[in-house]
Amino acid sequence: MEQIAKGIWKKRIGIHESITPVAINENLISEEALEHLGRTGKVPFTDSDVNSKINDRGCIIEIPLMAYEKIFGFGLQLKSFNQTGKKKYLRTNADPIADTGDTHAPVPFYVSTAGYGVYVDTARYVSFYCGSSRKQGEENRGLSKRTAVIANNTEDLYSKDNMSEDEVMLIEVPYAKGVDVYFFEGPDIKTAVQRYNLFSGGGCLPPMWGLGILYRLFGRADQEKALELAESFRKDGIPCDIIGMEPGWQSHSYSCSYTWDKLRFPEPEAIIKKLKEMNYKINLWEHVFVHPTSPIYEDLKPYSGDYEVWKGLVPDLNIKQASRIFSQYHREQLVERGIDGFKLDECDSSDYTGGWSFPNCSEFPSGMDGEQMHSLLGTLYQKTILSAISQTNRRTYGQVRSSHAQAASLPFVLYSDLYDHSDFIRGVVNAGFSGLLWTPEVRQCETVEDLVRRLQTVIFSPQACINAWMIPNPPWLQFDHDKNLKGELLDNWKEVQNMCKGILELRMSFIPYLYSSFAKYHSDGTPPFRALVMDYPQDTNTYVIDDQYMMGDSVLVAPVVAGKNTREVYLPEGNWYSFWNSKKYYGSKRYEIKVELEQIPVFIKENTLLPLANPIENVLPDTCFDIVVQCYGEQCEPFTLYEDDGVSYDYIHGSYNHVLLTWKAGSCHSVDRKGNFQGIRYRIIVWKDMVHNEV
Amino acid sequence: MEQIAKGIWKKRIGIHESITPVAINENLISEEALEHLGRTGKVPFTDSDVNSKINDRGCIIEIPLMAYEKIFGFGLQLKSFNQTGKKKYLRTNADPIADTGDTHAPVPFYVSTAGYGVYVDTARYVSFYCGSSRKQGEENRGLSKRTAVIANNTEDLYSKDNMSEDEVMLIEVPYAKGVDVYFFEGPDIKTAVQRYNLFSGGGCLPPMWGLGILYRLFGRADQEKALELAESFRKDGIPCDIIGMEPGWQSHSYSCSYTWDKLRFPEPEAIIKKLKEMNYKINLWEHVFVHPTSPIYEDLKPYSGDYEVWKGLVPDLNIKQASRIFSQYHREQLVERGIDGFKLDECDSSDYTGGWSFPNCSEFPSGMDGEQMHSLLGTLYQKTILSAISQTNRRTYGQVRSSHAQAASLPFVLYSDLYDHSDFIRGVVNAGFSGLLWTPEVRQCETVEDLVRRLQTVIFSPQACINAWMIPNPPWLQFDHDKNLKGELLDNWKEVQNMCKGILELRMSFIPYLYSSFAKYHSDGTPPFRALVMDYPQDTNTYVIDDQYMMGDSVLVAPVVAGKNTREVYLPEGNWYSFWNSKKYYGSKRYEIKVELEQIPVFIKENTLLPLANPIENVLPDTCFDIVVQCYGEQCEPFTLYEDDGVSYDYIHGSYNHVLLTWKAGSCHSVDRKGNFQGIRYRIIVWKDMVHNEV
Repeated sequence: MEQIAKGIWKKRIGIHESITPVAINENLISEEALEHLGRTGKVPFTDSDVNSKINDRGCIIEIPLMAYEKIFGFGLQLKSFNQTGKKKYLRTNADPIADTGDTHAPVPFYVSTAGYGVYVDTARYVSFYCGSSRKQGEENRGLSKRTAVIANNTEDLYSKDNMSEDEVMLIEVPYAKGVDVYFFEGPDIKTAVQRYNLFSGGGCLPPMWGLGILYRLFGRADQEKALELAESFRKDGIPCDIIGMEPGWQSHSYSCSYTWDKLRFPEPEAIIKKLKEMNYKINLWEHVFVHPTSPIYEDLKPYSGDYEVWKGLVPDLNIKQASRIFSQYHREQLVERGIDGFKLDECDSSDYTGGWSFPNCSEFPSGMDGEQMHSLLGTLYQKTILSAISQTNRRTYGQVRSSHAQAASLPFVLYSDLYDHSDFIRGVVNAGFSGLLWTPEVRQCETVEDLVRRLQTVIFSPQACINAWMIPNPPWLQFDHDKNLKGELLDNWKEVQNMCKGILELRMSFIPYLYSSFAKYHSDGTPPFRALVMDYPQDTNTYVIDDQYMMGDSVLVAPVVAGKNTREVYLPEGNWYSFWNSKKYYGSKRYEIKVELEQIPVFIKENTLLPLANPIENVLPDTCFDIVVQCYGEQCEPFTLYEDDGVSYDYIHGSYNHVLLTWKAGSCHSVDRKGNFQGIRYRIIVWKDMVHNEV
Repeated sequence: MEQIAKGIWKKRIGIHESITPVAINENLISEEALEHLGRTGKVPFTDSDVNSKINDRGCIIEIPLMAYEKIFGFGLQLKSFNQTGKKKYLRTNADPIADTGDTHAPVPFYVSTAGYGVYVDTARYVSFYCGSSRKQGEENRGLSKRTAVIANNTEDLYSKDNMSEDEVMLIEVPYAKGVDVYFFEGPDIKTAVQRYNLFSGGGCLPPMWGLGILYRLFGRADQEKALELAESFRKDGIPCDIIGMEPGWQSHSYSCSYTWDKLRFPEPEAIIKKLKEMNYKINLWEHVFVHPTSPIYEDLKPYSGDYEVWKGLVPDLNIKQASRIFSQYHREQLVERGIDGFKLDECDSSDYTGGWSFPNCSEFPSGMDGEQMHSLLGTLYQKTILSAISQTNRRTYGQVRSSHAQAASLPFVLYSDLYDHSDFIRGVVNAGFSGLLWTPEVRQCETVEDLVRRLQTVIFSPQACINAWMIPNPPWLQFDHDKNLKGELLDNWKEVQNMCKGILELRMSFIPYLYSSFAKYHSDGTPPFRALVMDYPQDTNTYVIDDQYMMGDSVLVAPVVAGKNTREVYLPEGNWYSFWNSKKYYGSKRYEIKVELEQIPVFIKENTLLPLANPIENVLPDTCFDIVVQCYGEQCEPFTLYEDDGVSYDYIHGSYNHVLLTWKAGSCHSVDRKGNFQGIRYRIIVWKDMVHNEV
């Protein structure tokens, strides 16, 4: 067991493979921040605790599990939360409809309520048996002689009681002749996750505009329709920072030409200019499979895999030259001409949606096989595109459909073609365990209620994305797909639009709070969105809560899915205040909350200073937010607003401020700005004592 | 390429593994029947057509695919039918809710409309890329320069058009350093499947009683309740041949003791005697995981895998001694005391239902690993139990939750905890491609309509199983689970019971026809239930029909799921007659059929002699069916009824008859009985000209 940084330990088993997440991400570790986090002094396991063997199947590892431990993590698991007692096969899959471990973003990293994290550094489809496997020959303690109660349904039949003693976390890494396993000290899940994120370079800091609204246009929109919609948002005062264009912008898609289509978009420069004049950022859809008509096809051909996808090349972005060709083309042809971000589609792997994508046994020039490429394509692609933009000293905040380990520093948000609202909420909860960001994007809906409920969730997520690629009109004009296509608008669209506008404005009010939470993600690895168990590790009630989450340190969000008039909310220890009416709730209790359509249940932790901005339509380079500081409690903790130019990487070199807000009920408040950034992004206009103004 | 039997070819690639389906099934091939089938003279592929390579991942094979070919098979695929263009990862899974290839019964065998079959002899989780993968560097013929129409939904986005040229069937066998691939000549799918089934020893011939009704009792029933229900069936004249008992019969279940529970079943001999007096056969639930309280635990311990399941041993039934211990115990303690069959549960592998079952990296004394054992446990278990019964010269017809390749001769029917009715119908259609039998069992239901529709499907399936393990009263007294548990019966239960009784009686009428179809399955490999494409290989309309099937050679079944008043039925070439009113339908046409609740759409092929029995409640050793021969057409084909003692293996030694029925409209008919069996199972009481009596 070797200490590789403060609180992080490595055990090398056998001969580790040359292509792993750590190997392709050299020198990511945020050593200084890890130093700052310190150590618990407790190594989770000793060398002798961890058994391993290497055989014809690959590398097999056993790590002890205590009967009381609960396990979370494994990347973007949409179908389950608490993984204790389950099997997870971490396979990259575009359509993870079953709870088998398949996901857009498998991450071989888990955390335990015993207060540690374990990361298996592999690009293989690794299996984790989370306490489901008991060695034959172990002593049978308390063995029952007779089954008195016969199970009466499949749930009972297959339910896993608490683990017995002598169980293990059994890990199988296929094909590998060895692997490096990393252990992250706690003392709790959140700290273990922070260490993991800092091991990955710290969390990403999006540009400030990235936290505004992203609206993805109808896929068949041409430049006129695109401009028309963009103009209508500004006319109606609907907040929107980013316009996303879907495949139709390209001359060929599936696979991609990466060139503008001359019929649908004859004047790309003109439309970029017009959108910029309306203060929009522009995001372009693409995927990584290069069509023969693409200008980079011939250059990339020698650096591609032996199988095609949609008759396009699969470039091996693990080869620097290939990554450079791809990145340079994007920078010169798109980024330097005004494009601000990209949506990186289909870098996962298909399953039941038709069998596209390259086989697992593909071979790539850098020595990867298809399985390894499926695991790493998402992160390689993100890094390639990121370099195209960061070379211009501009930040970006894109979308990506696949990611993997060590991705915390990559400013891309995951999404899915799945659409179950509860799964989408669970995605927000789970992504935070693994250094991932996830958007529960809103598309067409079943009802107005469904639309409103989904919008309320997405504004309390890493990326407020409305993905209207299948509908020409915004969903608030018509939520129904077919009617929207036909142009049949809702009778009460004005009313619905106003309600939705209000929801989007709420997002804009939270930008200063959110941006500051992301700054913390960057500097100390704290995920801005996370499960309650991270903040309340001692509270066993939180071990099953997959439909509530913390946004930052002080805001608890409990989204509602359509069809519900009430929902159960669990509030952990301490006191809480309703965001909507400042009603006080005592913690460590469960509440049945009545939920009005207009209001998503949001609770503010006692003694919070919550900086809320007056909403704006979009963030400009010189935007200065007017802030109302809502004060909840007698002994409010100071709040640190993070401030910088919001667009460049100058913050890396120290160009940022910390704006410390302090307040004492009934007496005084102060704003203490410290740092090297010269601008001012926040103006405190009023301090509101929410507790004594209680409704 | 080596010819191993008439019309069957083997290509050996690399060093084949020692544990494969063929290796554990020595000498299964029905050489004589294969001789009888002859040869087409056309070897599907030559040595040089088939590319292969062996690398660190395993063995990779490429077989050419023509653009027009359609692919079917891969075992019990419940979620899809035509596999062309898809990826299938054949993993044993108890809950195959996604169309990824996961299934209770993966079979690495596929057939093509080009008229051949391919079997990959492996117990590995093999991947098939069915024309989804195109080699980079292949010529781009007819390449489009621009995408004119942008897809507007995920189905279009990911739809696979017809395959391009130069595609391949790409097969990856993990870990293996070689594999044997078998090619089965056509000239069509059905013949290729027949050859595959004969290669597996021919299809099974169930005992005649096996084709009657199987009713599985409430899991919590004790011996009184069990007898009470059995008596009520006889009192009400409800057909039932087999009473199935669920886990409660055992003193310990999950894992299994295989001994009667002294509290719930204090007098097993008495209850067996009473059930026998009522002419029931008895089937007992079990699984293969041996609890420490079981009498065979200590004996099996040295022959077990290194991981437990539910604290029970996983016996390595690939070791003769282990299989013998298991089999002998069953014979002496259960079979010789009156048990007629078993339900072999959970021999698949878990996934999302809790992570039970042994890991893929388990090790077994015979040298198998967990993956191989998951593939083969179902067939090993079937063979072990079969030997316990066949040693008494009695046939059986059981249930099993997992199977694999070369299983056609095993008299066990697959089932699932899944319950979508359309998937269940697709199961009947698909199982026939792979030498498997499947029951779309009926449990509790949503509505009376749902109950009736499901019953109508299950009686036209290999096993008419009502699985009431979760409900104390039969579903026709109360379809709803919760109300049934509470004893709240339907107001109109008499009416519903009568309707259901009529449906079950219909099954009994078909037993002679079905039994004769199974005899054909045994002798020439023709699956008794099969997709239309098998009988009409030239008719491209059949390539997508996954909700209709042939039962035997003359009966086309088109089940209806609840909620439908009409359904589309496609009738292939020739003329057809409604089973219900003898209305004539012209073939090669699609019909929108109005469906009354009482009637499942069933069509009889023109020129069929259909022997229908007067319904009985159960089959006795001396049952002689009164047969009405329904004659459809002017030029009816003769029909051969198969006749034997219905219970023993004496037919293997020639003790059976063929009863040839011939009929000429308006003139004469004859019954020609040939063979060595002395009894008489069929008495023809009337010949009915259905065409001239047309309604």
